[in-house]
Amino acid sequence: MNSKKIPDIIIGRLPIYLRALQRMKEEGIQTTSSQELGRQVGISAAQIRKDISQFGEFGKQGTGYNISFLIEKLSEILKVDRVWEVAVVGAGDMGHALVNYQGFLHRGFRITMIFDNHPSKIGQKIGDFVVQDVARLGEAIREAGVKVAMITVPASVAQEVADQLVQAGVKAILNYAPIKLKLSPDVQVQYIDPSRHLQRMTYYL
Amino acid sequence: MNSKKIPDIIIGRLPIYLRALQRMKEEGIQTTSSQELGRQVGISAAQIRKDISQFGEFGKQGTGYNISFLIEKLSEILKVDRVWEVAVVGAGDMGHALVNYQGFLHRGFRITMIFDNHPSKIGQKIGDFVVQDVARLGEAIREAGVKVAMITVPASVAQEVADQLVQAGVKAILNYAPIKLKLSPDVQVQYIDPSRHLQRMTYYL
Repeated sequence: MNSKKIPDIIIGRLPIYLRALQRMKEEGIQTTSSQELGRQVGISAAQIRKDISQFGEFGKQGTGYNISFLIEKLSEILKVDRVWEVAVVGAGDMGHALVNYQGFLHRGFRITMIFDNHPSKIGQKIGDFVVQDVARLGEAIREAGVKVAMITVPASVAQEVADQLVQAGVKAILNYAPIKLKLSPDVQVQYIDPSRHLQRMTYYL
Repeated sequence: MNSKKIPDIIIGRLPIYLRALQRMKEEGIQTTSSQELGRQVGISAAQIRKDISQFGEFGKQGTGYNISFLIEKLSEILKVDRVWEVAVVGAGDMGHALVNYQGFLHRGFRITMIFDNHPSKIGQKIGDFVVQDVARLGEAIREAGVKVAMITVPASVAQEVADQLVQAGVKAILNYAPIKLKLSPDVQVQYIDPSRHLQRMTYYL
């Protein structure tokens, strides 16, 4: 892999390409072009070629991309050629939905623990998991070496939970709480914000 | 508003700016600069100035942006200077989470109906709502003139639900099901895909 600094906006597009390629592979397709991939994801062929060429020569002029090969390469680049353990904090509706969600495993992630602070939730079973006391969060995450977490607690306690996660060694947080987290710059944070997606669509209505 | 076609990638950034501006306003801040806004959202000041200038002259050289004014303008552009009624299809964990989510109303959206097809869920109360039979979906959406919907059903039935929504007049769909929807190009679709956000972070780990 290239050691030069790749713009984050490009990194943000790679999972979109990877997803589309995996879908094509599931449909039995073996090769594709930047044009076809572009149609699938709504990004120009030129942009796709430029983005992918940042990491090496993965396509061939005239024959396009071998889908399995490109999936392998993009998975390596995004480090999802392995499975990351993920902790969920907050066993409300959203926590339940995430634990029951079937879409993580073939994308490189497996939820392995869920925490809450409410006595009525601690000890409760969700799927194969028992909700653990958030007081055990630091110890459990450190012991398991978990680096990735999702926060689904109310906004009022999200910052506190994020701080605890980072202290326990978590380096990447997906935040569902509607609040911007203030964390050290070496911690990755992403936000799920449905209103943002809705607003992007109403522009066109 | 300008009548020229604005690239969709710019439209996609406007909700991010709007959100950050609303947060600043809540903190009592009255003016900001493209530099400060850039720091808040992780986008370059030059990019922000370029994006916003597509729609008019909303800032002043030297004094920056009046936050309330820019919020008003961006809200008009994104058409969230009003409140859109939203239908939710799927009363599982995710449907519950969305109906109970407090973050929609001040961003321009209000969930007004929720549907499911399962006898054990139809008639169930979620917050102020009664889950309606999905068989009534078309009629209810047409009657109310709802244009925006969120799909939280399993992937296997998401396409069918989307088709029904579009037939009933829905023009914008936020899809939580892990499947790409095939719809007429005049229907807006956005996807919530947590794995994509996770993969964007693991690159840096």
